[in-house]
Amino acid sequence: MALIVQKFGGTSVATPERIKSLANRVNRFKKQGHQIVVVVSAMSGETNRLIALANEITTTPSLRELDVIISTGEQVSIGMTALALQELGLKAKSYTGSQVKILTDASNGKARIIDIDGQSMKKDIDNGYVVVVAGFQGCDADGNITTLGRGGSDTTGVALAAALGADECQIYTDVDGVYTTDPRVVPEARRLDRITFEEMLELASQGSKVLQTRSVEFAGKYKVKLRVLSSFEEEGNGTLITFEEDSKDDNMEQPLISGIAFNRDEAKIMVLGVPDTPGIAYQILGPIADANIDVDIIIQNQGAKTTDFTFTVHKNEMKKALEILNTKVQPDIHAREIIGDDNIAKVSAVGVGMRSHVGVASQMFRTLSEEGINIQMISTSEIKVAVVIEEKYMELAVRALHKAFELEEA
Amino acid sequence: MALIVQKFGGTSVATPERIKSLANRVNRFKKQGHQIVVVVSAMSGETNRLIALANEITTTPSLRELDVIISTGEQVSIGMTALALQELGLKAKSYTGSQVKILTDASNGKARIIDIDGQSMKKDIDNGYVVVVAGFQGCDADGNITTLGRGGSDTTGVALAAALGADECQIYTDVDGVYTTDPRVVPEARRLDRITFEEMLELASQGSKVLQTRSVEFAGKYKVKLRVLSSFEEEGNGTLITFEEDSKDDNMEQPLISGIAFNRDEAKIMVLGVPDTPGIAYQILGPIADANIDVDIIIQNQGAKTTDFTFTVHKNEMKKALEILNTKVQPDIHAREIIGDDNIAKVSAVGVGMRSHVGVASQMFRTLSEEGINIQMISTSEIKVAVVIEEKYMELAVRALHKAFELEEA
Repeated sequence: MALIVQKFGGTSVATPERIKSLANRVNRFKKQGHQIVVVVSAMSGETNRLIALANEITTTPSLRELDVIISTGEQVSIGMTALALQELGLKAKSYTGSQVKILTDASNGKARIIDIDGQSMKKDIDNGYVVVVAGFQGCDADGNITTLGRGGSDTTGVALAAALGADECQIYTDVDGVYTTDPRVVPEARRLDRITFEEMLELASQGSKVLQTRSVEFAGKYKVKLRVLSSFEEEGNGTLITFEEDSKDDNMEQPLISGIAFNRDEAKIMVLGVPDTPGIAYQILGPIADANIDVDIIIQNQGAKTTDFTFTVHKNEMKKALEILNTKVQPDIHAREIIGDDNIAKVSAVGVGMRSHVGVASQMFRTLSEEGINIQMISTSEIKVAVVIEEKYMELAVRALHKAFELEEA
Repeated sequence: MALIVQKFGGTSVATPERIKSLANRVNRFKKQGHQIVVVVSAMSGETNRLIALANEITTTPSLRELDVIISTGEQVSIGMTALALQELGLKAKSYTGSQVKILTDASNGKARIIDIDGQSMKKDIDNGYVVVVAGFQGCDADGNITTLGRGGSDTTGVALAAALGADECQIYTDVDGVYTTDPRVVPEARRLDRITFEEMLELASQGSKVLQTRSVEFAGKYKVKLRVLSSFEEEGNGTLITFEEDSKDDNMEQPLISGIAFNRDEAKIMVLGVPDTPGIAYQILGPIADANIDVDIIIQNQGAKTTDFTFTVHKNEMKKALEILNTKVQPDIHAREIIGDDNIAKVSAVGVGMRSHVGVASQMFRTLSEEGINIQMISTSEIKVAVVIEEKYMELAVRALHKAFELEEA
């Protein structure tokens, strides 16, 4: 008998029919003798409907009240799911974030979990109940309803698994696991039976939109065994996300590369010919950070007396970032030129295996060169080599790299 | 400066536009220097939508989970209302029933309020906030979400007014006050400036659907000054519902009759020719009560050796009541005949003034007789005379009585 947390997203609870099908799946696990905690999102479309409703009052709603409104989406889902489980003869009980006592900070709309009490929930689990918890929400120390931000239901699942000491946290998604790359781009893409947390983090943040980055960080921190499975297929073990140590024990021969990630949501901003003085990076990026614009890759190239500074932001925020640079930064730094380019894509090779193999980067550069693809930026980490290229070459680059690193072979 | 609780029903929050208009009204009171607590229902239609959704899973939902689902209706309303108030520059904050700590018993779907903590809410009111509270809901001692049953938002308003020691509880409705009878039946019906709680109770339970009976009982018990006003008209003071003592002070000349109430939702059940033995009433009504069927009028007429027993139930429950009588009761009592009749209406003359005037009943009977209307049942209380007649004569009876008691004259 294991204690399993199963998280289902909005598409799995989109209609009463889907909720019944979800209940059948939970019932099969329960019949196997497992203890089950179910975490559900709002019925798909519901959160957007509620936000649109609030926007009819004001386009700048207070985040406290917006959370009060949108948290009802998951609350409906937990009630519906509990009813569907009860229809199958199971004992089931729903819990809102406040009822579980998922204590968060007071950052409405993007709250972080501080602690999970879960005493009452534990008692129900021990008494044979399937406990159904609202994802994405909690409450702060003053009892205000908070939400964890988009995709936060994954985080709820992982946090509950950690708090309850669950044997596994299963995340049911639209895909049946984590792939070497997006199968829509490379039909030969292969599902990975297992992947390390670090690789998963890179793949997730690089654009393989399977799991929310924060939930993976959380799972890594609290050593929660995380498994990605398909909501729509009955069979298959999905992809198990492991700690690197475990992974090594089981499988000594690490592949060099686990997957190819890509992302076309970023734009490149070049600040060219600025004085190469201490503090220049802060002068440029400080005002960007103050405006809450997320920056991904940052590169600085030294020239003779001046230096070139390049970084990437989300495409949607390029205009705003350029405006800040031109109005607030340029008067002080006197750059030769400030250029924005949103016609780019980022492609990354990811794998814990590359740590001990110096050849990955050069293999990657050679492959792209053979395809005649020019590399605009390079950024590396311990388990990743990322390049920025012209957007139109993205698919070609992904396919070529997938083949070059022999990812299609099992 | 007064502390006023203002309760708005589903039609007042039916659309974002209506919510903005509600906010404008609250703002005018706030600008006059009053402290305001707003209680809102779910947007009209929303509760039914949520029940229908739950019914797609099961037509016999557990009441605990149904409450989890339908309580989201008011939660959306409080968030929307708080946003609309904030848009006008007011400080506003929403509270769910659980957040206020409206403690109820554990009877999901028809919970009763036990206690209201309201400490946190009081602090906000003192700090200048308009506090917006979800009507119709609370939580039990274990933190389970409960609902007070249909129309329970009125009760929330009154209970909050009592707990906060508010100067007045204003109930905004589709009508601009309490009338001598339904203006759709009698165009000459007149709005009453004031009415006693007891009269109001009779009028409400007799079918003048202005206020929920329970909320009026609650107001009477806790001496809350209750005022019924129109949601749609800016002017007018509505109808103030007073304690009889206050009413007498202000207005020595009590009218005989305050209004004519009517109700066509009841059915009559006659149990004829049963042995006139002690305990027979309990034998007949015990199983009916056990089945949770509400009984209104009960009449017993003694004959020679047997007795006739007649009572009224809601039309929807007549079939069920007859079945219980025929299967569970008849084998023991051997009644000559058990007859159901849902072709009836109840018409009542209500007024505290009638206590000291014996003539009301006879005036009523004479009027009906002059119109050729046969009286099937008669029931009286201290401030009411009710008759049951054939349904098709209902409007005629109401109009004739309204005229006979000179209610159209101010």
